[in-house]
Amino acid sequence: MGTKLARDFIQSGTSNVTRQILTLNAGAEKRLRSGHHWLYANEVDTSKTPLAGIEAGSVADVQDARGRTLGSFMINPNALICGRLISRKAGRELTRSLLKNRLKQALAIREQCFENPCYRWVYGDSDGLSGLVVDRFDDILSVQVSTAGMEAHLPMILDLLQRLVQPKGIVLKNDGKMRAVEGLPSYVEVAVGEVPEQVALIENGVQFHAPLISGQKTGWFYDHRPNRALAAKWSAGKRVLDVFSYLGGWGITCAAQGAAEVICSDVSNSALSGVMENARLNGCDDRVSTIQGDAFDVLDQLNQERQRFDVVIVDPPAFIARRKDIAAGERAYQKLNEQAMKLVNYGGLLISASCSMHLQAQRLNDIIRSSARKLERHAVLLAEGGQGADHPVLPAVPETRYIKSLFTQVTPGL
Amino acid sequence: MGTKLARDFIQSGTSNVTRQILTLNAGAEKRLRSGHHWLYANEVDTSKTPLAGIEAGSVADVQDARGRTLGSFMINPNALICGRLISRKAGRELTRSLLKNRLKQALAIREQCFENPCYRWVYGDSDGLSGLVVDRFDDILSVQVSTAGMEAHLPMILDLLQRLVQPKGIVLKNDGKMRAVEGLPSYVEVAVGEVPEQVALIENGVQFHAPLISGQKTGWFYDHRPNRALAAKWSAGKRVLDVFSYLGGWGITCAAQGAAEVICSDVSNSALSGVMENARLNGCDDRVSTIQGDAFDVLDQLNQERQRFDVVIVDPPAFIARRKDIAAGERAYQKLNEQAMKLVNYGGLLISASCSMHLQAQRLNDIIRSSARKLERHAVLLAEGGQGADHPVLPAVPETRYIKSLFTQVTPGL
Repeated sequence: MGTKLARDFIQSGTSNVTRQILTLNAGAEKRLRSGHHWLYANEVDTSKTPLAGIEAGSVADVQDARGRTLGSFMINPNALICGRLISRKAGRELTRSLLKNRLKQALAIREQCFENPCYRWVYGDSDGLSGLVVDRFDDILSVQVSTAGMEAHLPMILDLLQRLVQPKGIVLKNDGKMRAVEGLPSYVEVAVGEVPEQVALIENGVQFHAPLISGQKTGWFYDHRPNRALAAKWSAGKRVLDVFSYLGGWGITCAAQGAAEVICSDVSNSALSGVMENARLNGCDDRVSTIQGDAFDVLDQLNQERQRFDVVIVDPPAFIARRKDIAAGERAYQKLNEQAMKLVNYGGLLISASCSMHLQAQRLNDIIRSSARKLERHAVLLAEGGQGADHPVLPAVPETRYIKSLFTQVTPGL
Repeated sequence: MGTKLARDFIQSGTSNVTRQILTLNAGAEKRLRSGHHWLYANEVDTSKTPLAGIEAGSVADVQDARGRTLGSFMINPNALICGRLISRKAGRELTRSLLKNRLKQALAIREQCFENPCYRWVYGDSDGLSGLVVDRFDDILSVQVSTAGMEAHLPMILDLLQRLVQPKGIVLKNDGKMRAVEGLPSYVEVAVGEVPEQVALIENGVQFHAPLISGQKTGWFYDHRPNRALAAKWSAGKRVLDVFSYLGGWGITCAAQGAAEVICSDVSNSALSGVMENARLNGCDDRVSTIQGDAFDVLDQLNQERQRFDVVIVDPPAFIARRKDIAAGERAYQKLNEQAMKLVNYGGLLISASCSMHLQAQRLNDIIRSSARKLERHAVLLAEGGQGADHPVLPAVPETRYIKSLFTQVTPGL
């Protein structure tokens, strides 16, 4: 495949280092031209421009087979996604001023959308910062880096984050699965200042404590914020079941905003301790209780007891992590939604959430449809929620869209 | 095709009239079994059970080719959609008690979701009342009947509506395009009490007057309610352009809730008079102005003047009325969104709405994507809104889903 062939070099217009160029196979530019940010290794004409030998994390110009520029990309020769767009212009680097401008722009829109400084500040490609995620919990930041390109710029990023919002602490939650693919080590460490075991945050006017360092992913899931607000609005005075509750993001929001009774269920005892702590924080612990156990077992048990709820929320972890898991994952969503729908009082709501990028919205719609048919219910969607504004979708990059939340009213079959 | 063959009759279990039966072609039951409500004429085995001769608006049992029941349907032998589900059980009629239960159930969910008695009370198939739409403006009702089956039950429906909410007036806006297909006359008439030329309504806490009798469709479009609320929230202190404004459903909501300046544009002078009346109603007429003209011309003119807005809203009438209009309609949406996106200040919002059922959400996403590419913008979706809870989507009937609203933040291209 020509790894020993000479590579093209040009002098960059903005710096004095030699500039790497990658040329694509004929026709392989289409997705990038249509707006996507990712370059796949099999799209590179490696006979002309070998990937091997390029330093992971370096920047290159990418051009189509006819030599027309497609932009500047962070390169990782060892990853399937071997390039990530920095700019549609050639010769650009992830400079301090570029990083600062993108961080500031991302911050500005969050400040416009949210009353409290608690949000996902940076959401990768959607903010022009492929491979970087920053969650903000007031004066504590949680950072995830998933690419060699961003890792190479981490000191600069940490410095900019400090200058922009003066955090008391920054934790690097660099233990995501994608890091191994990029040849990056897995670690969690406090990089700046001090980070308490529990951080405080406000979401939809409700207070929460989240275990940042030991918790899942960045420690909290802001992505369902608008859906949790709507769930709470429609749960006033109701009996609510929150399955896969984690720290009570859904259930405690409902309880704090007027639900009559909320049961949170999770397999993790420490998550359920967090639920009760969050209930006490909001003065609604008298209306909140917990059930520890596997979600499917708990739903089964509640059905056997003929328990009924006005609102049942199921927000499972991604059952479909990879494309090959789609069939098994969809069966799991189907089973989950059927079990949950059975527990809903007539006239009540099933709130069916998914964070699997690989579960298409239309498939979740179909799972609700078929569950209703099987159980002889008439089920209609009162709302179809997506991800919060701090997780903006980039229309050209479908991988940026993953949250779904169907608010399904369940009544007797016609 | 055997129109003279004897048809099957059975004695109905619940009445003494002979019961019509329609048998489907082999395999034609699949869509109905999966949950859809509509039967197409070409799915009926007319050699066994001719459609011709069945009275439009009567009820029949429908069964598959093997004789298994699919339910009770309202029949119109002259329409392409020749059957509409009443019940999955055989032998059912649109009785007074069935109609009353469905109207009450539909009312209950609206009362739960909305503070004021202003909403679409009945939304056809989603409320188990195929062919019936009822919009409520406090004590005035606007009713649309689109099928022979519902028309046959209109006196009973009007009586039930009166008993359930004691309206001061009911207007029949029976001038929809689908009525001709069903062989029904086109008319608008006040059927009950008195209906003023302008009716008052409250949506998202904002007051409006709408010309019920002379206005478009049922007189007001409640369907974008949650999207208008979000538009207003994100327009505080901003300069807003509302194109295809009609009576100012979007623009006046923004102005009443704190936008600095709102310009509403519509081709109709009477709509724009309504805009200013609604502005005065909410005490924000000092911040509202209007531009009369064709939307494409107005956008072009504003672009030539190099005007810029923080928020541009485009909510056109359905550019795609029928499937064959898809290509031309998508070009119109593309042109509209490009022109509108150009007017958005960097960091501002394009709110791109569509009420075309035939424009797929993914296609509108794609129009935003390609507009951004063409104009060299980085455009991300801060929210993807659907229709309000008074227009519930029936997952098995894709025709019930039609509203889309993409909240697109526009920044410089990367």
